[in-house]
Amino acid sequence: MDNARVKARTLSGFMELMPQDQLLFNKIASTLEEHYRLCGFLPLDTPILENSDVLLAKAGGETEKQIYRFTKGDSDLTMRFDLTVPLAKYVALHYNDLVFPFKRYQIGKVYRGERSQRGRFREFYQADIDIIGDGELAITNDAEIPSIIYGVFSALGLTDFTIRINNRKILFGLFLMLSIEEYAEEAMRIVDKIEKIGRDKAAGELRDMGIAAEKVELLLQFIAISGSSEEMLSQLRAFSRGEELFERGIHELECVVKAVSMFGVPEESYKIDLSIARGLDYYTGTVYETSFDKHPEIGSICSGGRYDNLAGHYTDKKLPGVGVSIGLTRLFFILNEMNYLNRQVSTPVDVLVLPMTESYEEAIAFASLLRTNHLNAQIYFEDKKFKNKMSYANRINVPFVAFIGEDEIKQRTVSLKNFISGVQVTVSREEALSVIRGSLEEIGDTKIINCT
Amino acid sequence: MDNARVKARTLSGFMELMPQDQLLFNKIASTLEEHYRLCGFLPLDTPILENSDVLLAKAGGETEKQIYRFTKGDSDLTMRFDLTVPLAKYVALHYNDLVFPFKRYQIGKVYRGERSQRGRFREFYQADIDIIGDGELAITNDAEIPSIIYGVFSALGLTDFTIRINNRKILFGLFLMLSIEEYAEEAMRIVDKIEKIGRDKAAGELRDMGIAAEKVELLLQFIAISGSSEEMLSQLRAFSRGEELFERGIHELECVVKAVSMFGVPEESYKIDLSIARGLDYYTGTVYETSFDKHPEIGSICSGGRYDNLAGHYTDKKLPGVGVSIGLTRLFFILNEMNYLNRQVSTPVDVLVLPMTESYEEAIAFASLLRTNHLNAQIYFEDKKFKNKMSYANRINVPFVAFIGEDEIKQRTVSLKNFISGVQVTVSREEALSVIRGSLEEIGDTKIINCT
Repeated sequence: MDNARVKARTLSGFMELMPQDQLLFNKIASTLEEHYRLCGFLPLDTPILENSDVLLAKAGGETEKQIYRFTKGDSDLTMRFDLTVPLAKYVALHYNDLVFPFKRYQIGKVYRGERSQRGRFREFYQADIDIIGDGELAITNDAEIPSIIYGVFSALGLTDFTIRINNRKILFGLFLMLSIEEYAEEAMRIVDKIEKIGRDKAAGELRDMGIAAEKVELLLQFIAISGSSEEMLSQLRAFSRGEELFERGIHELECVVKAVSMFGVPEESYKIDLSIARGLDYYTGTVYETSFDKHPEIGSICSGGRYDNLAGHYTDKKLPGVGVSIGLTRLFFILNEMNYLNRQVSTPVDVLVLPMTESYEEAIAFASLLRTNHLNAQIYFEDKKFKNKMSYANRINVPFVAFIGEDEIKQRTVSLKNFISGVQVTVSREEALSVIRGSLEEIGDTKIINCT
Repeated sequence: MDNARVKARTLSGFMELMPQDQLLFNKIASTLEEHYRLCGFLPLDTPILENSDVLLAKAGGETEKQIYRFTKGDSDLTMRFDLTVPLAKYVALHYNDLVFPFKRYQIGKVYRGERSQRGRFREFYQADIDIIGDGELAITNDAEIPSIIYGVFSALGLTDFTIRINNRKILFGLFLMLSIEEYAEEAMRIVDKIEKIGRDKAAGELRDMGIAAEKVELLLQFIAISGSSEEMLSQLRAFSRGEELFERGIHELECVVKAVSMFGVPEESYKIDLSIARGLDYYTGTVYETSFDKHPEIGSICSGGRYDNLAGHYTDKKLPGVGVSIGLTRLFFILNEMNYLNRQVSTPVDVLVLPMTESYEEAIAFASLLRTNHLNAQIYFEDKKFKNKMSYANRINVPFVAFIGEDEIKQRTVSLKNFISGVQVTVSREEALSVIRGSLEEIGDTKIINCT
């Protein structure tokens, strides 16, 4: 039986990284987490498996096809396909013990049984933030969300992005003004993909739906309105015919844009874009998308918006919210493909301690000193030739090697080799600490993403 | 359809924490992670779903019964039930790209479809560390593992524990000396549970297997040998009749114990315990268990050992290793039950900023100042009465509330209320930073676990 070997393999569509890349991925995730905590979001960790009726309470046919669902004993189980439905369940279930507004972040794996293709994943991380109100939720929260996106991407070192903001009430209001509200849902979907399919194709599809040609023209002119936020808002106001929803949308958008700049988001990092509609019927106000300036073809890397009622499928409490989601696994894949990742920031270990004698006592003591001083240290205990030890150090890509041989033991020193510069010095152990620290601080200041 | 509500519920055996507890859980996990990194371990994150033949390559009937296995399209899939099998697969699959010794940690969810009962989980976190060699792996690695367990538990604030160390070669050698090696595997299992079932019952079971009464007596005398490490080692040596495996076991145990103290683990935190056998046939040398001194009934909270061949089911490469695993979800549950968790260390947010006028600009500016200075800040934007705002602050358990009203805006100050002491001061914004920092540093020095 021992000889009947199984071929070791990983399912396609499931990302499995080598340690060096995993370090980078984790650094991105922890940067997100730290920033979310800074902004007052609390962590949440819900199960990956849930009762199917709970997860699929509001799902449609498309979702059902793409999920991992199975039975075990009497239970009908589904692996979560997003982090929003579990949040809705959580808030409905624990309503009495939560304090609203409830700000939560969750970074976790979700599952979609889609057809596998390059850059599409069946298991992937989402990083979500949401602010949930009880009954109502102030509009200024809608402005904090883009400021957090800006803060997170800036902390990572990404500069090549624009947050695009719109308000679905404006689009809905326009549909009302044009008396084409019956087509709203489908028309939103077409508007949403206009960048991908082009103006002419979108116009054709809208006409095919039954919208009169001149109304299609008006609609397309409308969503193409451009300029600075101020210019666009005044053009929008000029467009208004007293339609209430439309005017409420403009007012909300104005509040959001005004507060976004209070949060310190620079003008060049966000803009109003009237073509952002988000396909989901779920959003009812502010909507966001974030795209790379130099790579618009990649589409949105961080999307979300305002919804009126998070958990209507589980509770009669009205729980409005606003949030965004980053597809972390896909983002990592893209950053890697674009060569945007700064590999030098992912040092596997700061120092490799190499005992050069058979007595390990001093090598262990030095490693302990490093660790007490918050430096990551590995000790190499294998009985190998010097050549092999050096090759190990080279292959793991360590910045410092500390040799502890007979002389170093006698004199209580350490011979420290900087593997980047090649320079080797023999110094006291305390001095070694400051040499290593100084050098690592330089690396530590480097951002994870370099897109210049 | 909107009225057909589904009851929001979470599967039994699946831990879902409230935010305050989640903060504590995450703090424990990040303390582990930080310590593993300090000791040179690299992160790994393997898929939760794998091909069933890969995960079950070496599984027996018991495992098969307890797993979540299902088909999707043509694929026969299983949710991982531990982190060791995925590690074996990973190392076999990526053998050519890894550098050995390969030190990895993984903290992740695993799944067991066991009958649900209090304190037993179907979805739970394991935190594993392993050091994998290529062909061979020095024995000193076996000593570093308990030093890491010691370091991790100490960093958490746990003092009430003992790491118990044994070597299976000694037990196997003894079976050879007594000519009862044919009973070895079953006898190990009985020895392993002797603390639970008691000496007499164990003796009975061993005799029932067919081992002669005087040999059972000798075996039980042997595993009851006690004393300091040095005393025990010398008693073991006296027991030896030149049996090679037995002597190799003693030699290895001696090396491990000697090096463990070099790593700075104090005498009172570890001991040799000849009754530690570990049920799994997988271990071939050093074995570890860690138990609470005051609560031995809980059993081991961190177990592991040395194995000769990690990935024999996937590759002909010989990959020996040594590692331990912490059942993190169970540990958290136990610490909570024992009232060992220090709730004051999990502050949801450092400062709640309360704008007292309709202009948010200064409140946002102050929150941004806090965040830039690495203080977690939340701004309350809801249009509520003062009473409600204060009740919110109380309920989220925030240490500081910063009021920004008309006076504060005019004078560029902030009124800062310490919610623990009740003291309120009006100070400049820079002063506020240092007041908050000073107070939080005190909390920051508190350990997560308090077991005194």
